Amino acid sequence: MPVVSVRIARGRSTEQKRSLVKAITDAVASSIDVKPEWVTVLIEEYERENWATGGDLHSDKFGPGFGRQAR
Amino acid sequence: MPVVSVRIARGRSTEQKRSLVKAITDAVASSIDVKPEWVTVLIEEYERENWATGGDLHSDKFGPGFGRQAR
Amino acid sequence: MPVVSVRIARGRSTEQKRSLVKAITDAVASSIDVKPEWVTVLIEEYERENWATGGDLHSDKFGPGFGRQAR
Amino acid sequence: MPVVSVRIARGRSTEQKRSLVKAITDAVASSIDVKPEWVTVLIEEYERENWATGGDLHSDKFGPGFGRQAR
Amino acid sequence: MPVVSVRIARGRSTEQKRSLVKAITDAVASSIDVKPEWVTVLIEEYERENWATGGDLHSDKFGPGFGRQAR
Amino acid sequence: MPVVSVRIARGRSTEQKRSLVKAITDAVASSIDVKPEWVTVLIEEYERENWATGGDLHSDKFGPGFGRQAR
Repeated sequence: MPVVSVRIARGRSTEQKRSLVKAITDAVASSIDVKPEWVTVLIEEYERENWATGGDLHSDKFGPGFGRQAR
Repeated sequence: MPVVSVRIARGRSTEQKRSLVKAITDAVASSIDVKPEWVTVLIEEYERENWATGGDLHSDKFGPGFGRQAR
Repeated sequence: MPVVSVRIARGRSTEQKRSLVKAITDAVASSIDVKPEWVTVLIEEYERENWATGGDLHSDKFGPGFGRQAR
Repeated sequence: MPVVSVRIARGRSTEQKRSLVKAITDAVASSIDVKPEWVTVLIEEYERENWATGGDLHSDKFGPGFGRQAR
Repeated sequence: MPVVSVRIARGRSTEQKRSLVKAITDAVASSIDVKPEWVTVLIEEYERENWATGGDLHSDKFGPGFGRQAR
Repeated sequence: MPVVSVRIARGRSTEQKRSLVKAITDAVASSIDVKPEWVTVLIEEYERENWATGGDLHSDKFGPGFGRQAR
């Protein structure tokens, strides 16, 4: 009964989240042979102001927004 | 000095949270013999749009709201 | 479908873990009105060498062991 | 730069973990349009004695082992 | 490639978060000899209503606000 | 009362962990003005087989060991 947490930048649409949890669930179920209905996925959304790499806030590094297109 | 994280659907009242942290703290303290004042409880609230089981978002599965009554 | 993580010092017996997950499940189910079978509890055990408060490792502060009796 | 934690029962082979992280990374990259090399996946393995649903330890409920085949 | 989660009470300024992630990144890089650009820091902000010690919500114990000055 | 989780590759010495938790505690206390004795640090150690970036296990990418020197 796997429990998956996915930490991403805030801002994805409901449609993207729907795809995300479906794709992760399938990935887990097929890779380790568990039933899809056993898999729980939790999405944790972060403001860019609460995420840093190399000591720099992503809001400073990348500006507002999220994902590839915002860079 | 146990640290407990409780992930629940967003929407409970302050009164319910008050009961929740009290009951969990008592449960931990009595089960593993630690002082209640050593126990930390963190509540993490999730939108139903950020929670999925079986590959389906709970907002799609159960509609808005939270808990038993919303089903 | 609450998911609870309990971080404790390593060393409790199976019997204590059995009591712990039962008591936490009952605490959650009764406080926020969910069915007990919806509640998942995960126990995360830490060596005292991997836990610190006030900047000091618990292995340095409290010696080997766990819980109240080890102090 | 998504960070994914996957909590599973201990016991999968290296080959299964290899498939798991590859499949999850692809799932995340394609669903929310990020580069695969931005995706971090952490596998957290739990003993069945440290996992409970409905207030019962999985070691009591399902015996030793893991996954579908152990039931 | 360390991943650090920092759970704090909500309310710090961007400037404080900037200092926090810089200081933590330096602390990790120098203590365990990794490059600063490998270090990820995630800030998780909690309402005082979602944080308890000794069985009491911090919103009940300390009132609104955060940190030392709010007590 | 910040709670910090540091996820690192398994293998650091007790001395390195001692430095790590001291440095992180000081970093948090000075950046957001809390007392050092309020700060909890938890170290979570991962096998390289349980950590992946870009879809590849670090045990495949970097071989056994940990940190900069192992690459």
